[in-house]
Amino acid sequence: MPSMKPAKVGFRTRLFQLIFESDTPAAKAFDIGLVILIFVSVGIVMLNSIAEYHQKYGTYFFDIEWFITVIFTIELALRIYCLDKPLLYLRSFYGVIDVLSVLPTWLVLLFPGAHTLIVVRLLRALRLFRVLDMMTIEGEKRLLLDALLRSRHQIMLFLFTVLMLVTIFSSILYLIEPAEAGFSSIPTAMYWGIVTMTTVGYGDITPITPLGQFISVAIMLTGYSIIALPVGVFSAEVIRALRAERYSDEACPGCGRHHHERDARYCKFCGTWLDEETTDPRARE
Amino acid sequence: MPSMKPAKVGFRTRLFQLIFESDTPAAKAFDIGLVILIFVSVGIVMLNSIAEYHQKYGTYFFDIEWFITVIFTIELALRIYCLDKPLLYLRSFYGVIDVLSVLPTWLVLLFPGAHTLIVVRLLRALRLFRVLDMMTIEGEKRLLLDALLRSRHQIMLFLFTVLMLVTIFSSILYLIEPAEAGFSSIPTAMYWGIVTMTTVGYGDITPITPLGQFISVAIMLTGYSIIALPVGVFSAEVIRALRAERYSDEACPGCGRHHHERDARYCKFCGTWLDEETTDPRARE
Amino acid sequence: MPSMKPAKVGFRTRLFQLIFESDTPAAKAFDIGLVILIFVSVGIVMLNSIAEYHQKYGTYFFDIEWFITVIFTIELALRIYCLDKPLLYLRSFYGVIDVLSVLPTWLVLLFPGAHTLIVVRLLRALRLFRVLDMMTIEGEKRLLLDALLRSRHQIMLFLFTVLMLVTIFSSILYLIEPAEAGFSSIPTAMYWGIVTMTTVGYGDITPITPLGQFISVAIMLTGYSIIALPVGVFSAEVIRALRAERYSDEACPGCGRHHHERDARYCKFCGTWLDEETTDPRARE
Amino acid sequence: MPSMKPAKVGFRTRLFQLIFESDTPAAKAFDIGLVILIFVSVGIVMLNSIAEYHQKYGTYFFDIEWFITVIFTIELALRIYCLDKPLLYLRSFYGVIDVLSVLPTWLVLLFPGAHTLIVVRLLRALRLFRVLDMMTIEGEKRLLLDALLRSRHQIMLFLFTVLMLVTIFSSILYLIEPAEAGFSSIPTAMYWGIVTMTTVGYGDITPITPLGQFISVAIMLTGYSIIALPVGVFSAEVIRALRAERYSDEACPGCGRHHHERDARYCKFCGTWLDEETTDPRARE
Repeated sequence: MPSMKPAKVGFRTRLFQLIFESDTPAAKAFDIGLVILIFVSVGIVMLNSIAEYHQKYGTYFFDIEWFITVIFTIELALRIYCLDKPLLYLRSFYGVIDVLSVLPTWLVLLFPGAHTLIVVRLLRALRLFRVLDMMTIEGEKRLLLDALLRSRHQIMLFLFTVLMLVTIFSSILYLIEPAEAGFSSIPTAMYWGIVTMTTVGYGDITPITPLGQFISVAIMLTGYSIIALPVGVFSAEVIRALRAERYSDEACPGCGRHHHERDARYCKFCGTWLDEETTDPRARE
Repeated sequence: MPSMKPAKVGFRTRLFQLIFESDTPAAKAFDIGLVILIFVSVGIVMLNSIAEYHQKYGTYFFDIEWFITVIFTIELALRIYCLDKPLLYLRSFYGVIDVLSVLPTWLVLLFPGAHTLIVVRLLRALRLFRVLDMMTIEGEKRLLLDALLRSRHQIMLFLFTVLMLVTIFSSILYLIEPAEAGFSSIPTAMYWGIVTMTTVGYGDITPITPLGQFISVAIMLTGYSIIALPVGVFSAEVIRALRAERYSDEACPGCGRHHHERDARYCKFCGTWLDEETTDPRARE
Repeated sequence: MPSMKPAKVGFRTRLFQLIFESDTPAAKAFDIGLVILIFVSVGIVMLNSIAEYHQKYGTYFFDIEWFITVIFTIELALRIYCLDKPLLYLRSFYGVIDVLSVLPTWLVLLFPGAHTLIVVRLLRALRLFRVLDMMTIEGEKRLLLDALLRSRHQIMLFLFTVLMLVTIFSSILYLIEPAEAGFSSIPTAMYWGIVTMTTVGYGDITPITPLGQFISVAIMLTGYSIIALPVGVFSAEVIRALRAERYSDEACPGCGRHHHERDARYCKFCGTWLDEETTDPRARE
Repeated sequence: MPSMKPAKVGFRTRLFQLIFESDTPAAKAFDIGLVILIFVSVGIVMLNSIAEYHQKYGTYFFDIEWFITVIFTIELALRIYCLDKPLLYLRSFYGVIDVLSVLPTWLVLLFPGAHTLIVVRLLRALRLFRVLDMMTIEGEKRLLLDALLRSRHQIMLFLFTVLMLVTIFSSILYLIEPAEAGFSSIPTAMYWGIVTMTTVGYGDITPITPLGQFISVAIMLTGYSIIALPVGVFSAEVIRALRAERYSDEACPGCGRHHHERDARYCKFCGTWLDEETTDPRARE
């Protein structure tokens, strides 16, 4: 967002620096104020869902919610105002969240029957990601994401195989278990299959027949041990990423290639001496 | 499968390239069409198991299932036709799946009472593995499988020890718990033992006596922490496999150092040319 | 604590060595005696909570509890007596625990209605940490703590993202599930969300609608696989800590190579003396 | 056991080779026969516990059990006969198991009311460990055990800390939850605490009050993430054990010290050239 600089200097610029950046104490205070409002807003949605509190404090919640919605609307209007290309922002991830945080709430407040839009008020919580962005070191997020990306093929292969095993085993249980066990259809049996394989084990549906219990034991042992796969693959990638610090960013003066290890003295591609501050010992002879 | 080339060139060859290979756009479209049909077929089996949908749409499902079965039968016939040694293919893993996907369905559709063969319709899902084969890089599957294979002794030792501990503890609970707790026989107690040790914990059977609860706590703590064994062993093997990928075992003929990357042509420690079968390009100058 | 030496020598010093240190057999016996008393005290609190035992042995428990409290009070008085700056100690972690172990018990015993202070008797168990301190090698605790500290950013990022996903999904279930399913408010739904995501799965609240079951499957699969993140990151940090223990960061003044073990005196690559602050013993000959 | 060689050669020796060793086909057949008998014996104990089968086949089970017990008794007698120091064997781990497999069964069969000794019949399963001993490569068991041993301090520290947290939190729930929730005493609350923390989650006891649910969420999240500790530590130790192959067994010809890395050319302790097959390049100058 700091790259979307407003064309004119002046009030708009100062507003931009206040809202979109976090350099000055005023900008930081703005951010903190925003986070507090988000937490209050989310907290109210949660408390309002508890029948007891809704009865006692429902009207206060409603008033505070109006107040917060107005503040967020003003804030969104200011954001649009101080940017040169507001449409570009509104189409970005954070822009969409900002709009989703405000627009539906107006609809909910104007048509109180729209109960289901309660959830969108919670989408305000997604704005906290922006705060998180500022909090974490860029490198750490990148490390996790890189490791996740590199492991993705194995993890997809793993998930697919697992899903197919669950489908087949669950269907067998659907066939052999009597009605009172709860396996009322194949999708329901698959729900039970995943509840069992992820070791959640609600107990709302449990096998009654000995054969069913035997097959479920197979699913349990599989789910219990197969967690080693994604964990092992992901750990190895994280370790590899940490080790990537082993590679320097510099290019070889001889062939220009990159990706040399930090402890390398000669370019592994063309044999040229790499350290620019000293001379090649072989050349001295 | 590309190794089973048909002897004659012509229509059969073009058919072979369409069905068994994925190079041309037509072949890719064929594969995608097949995957879609498989998903539809599996989806219908699942929806048909839900009483509500079976009543409303049962006849449509039946018709679509006939249609798909006919298409798969034609496809299997074409596969047999365009190969020179079809029996060899029918005995391979994918060949057996193809036959199992079609033959039982004919039996089910002709004798609708064969309810239990519903599951074999789901075996069509196994055909998706072929698609997966094409999607993943050979190396990644191999890496996972190799790591799994190398860890197999420790994992078997681990599973056996764990199974014996569960047997003994479950039997003790079978002896000390009263009838209403649900430990009706030793196999049932072992079912509870595995439900507990894998941390699934349905709750359909739970210990009532304090001693029983104490022993179950021992099983829980064991199951909870012992997962470190296969995870640790498997992770270590994956890491080893990843490292072996990058680093070769050979020594530099110049300085004797190890730990060179596979793509290195010159020793990073002393600059000597590493490939013993060719001569250093610089020396030729 | 050994650093808080008393100013005067004599009885107070001998008392100090007995209570705060563990060198002499008497001091060790003192420590063991203390641990035994703590275990007895905690055990009595537990047994006393069982209605059956409370009725049979309640009076004995009460008497033993008085006796132990008196002993701990005398011990605390002695600690204060033999130190020069007792207030400094009373403000330290172990000092606060010592006071909390004794003072509330007097209140409980004098005003037996203060049932809730039972828990503070259990705080005596925290005194066992001091024993643990003496048992473990300093390095091992440090290794674990360091690895934990270095992984903290990723783990916080992970926990925050996970918490937000749980909030949004749980709220959706709160909206779509009927009253009898148990999702009575958003906080209750979030309680269910965490029970599900951590794979605990009590089963006191379970989704009834197919859509609810589908969303819960998403939460289960997420919780089941996402454990790989903190485990992978933490494992990598432990491995890094173990390696940093063994290998130093310095380069050899002779050949410039890195990756020497900390206990190495000569470079394993070129034989040069590594310690820059002293001279090579061989050179002196 | 091969180290306990009988003093006289002849029938006893041949018996010894048959029973205690596995070199000849006869000895292997003996072992396999033994394993089959153990499985049959254990299987009968399990089937006999199922009321249905006990009624139908109880007498057959009884006869087969007599038969097997007689065979095991003869086998034990033979073992004692062909050894020179049988008492030494009877005191070893496997010797005790052999006696426990046979003696109690005689008591059970003579006094059928001794129902509780059923479990000791299952102890025969422990004899399978001897088979396992022969199946696994010595190095693999050693690797796992070594890694386990080296991690034991951290794992004990971890278990102790976790147990204390569970005790304190469970006690709080014991105090705040009403009677119908099931937290009837502190030990029962601790049982629930471990059921929750290990993510087993039976659901036989669940918190009803909001505060109780909040505290239980803390326990769940702790148990869910804290598994990273023992897994991470154990994985690191396994990796370290695998890397120990990095160290050679040879001693330095100069100072006699061991523990040099395989890729070391100069002794890190005294700087002497390590490779005995070549001469020190520095000496050539």
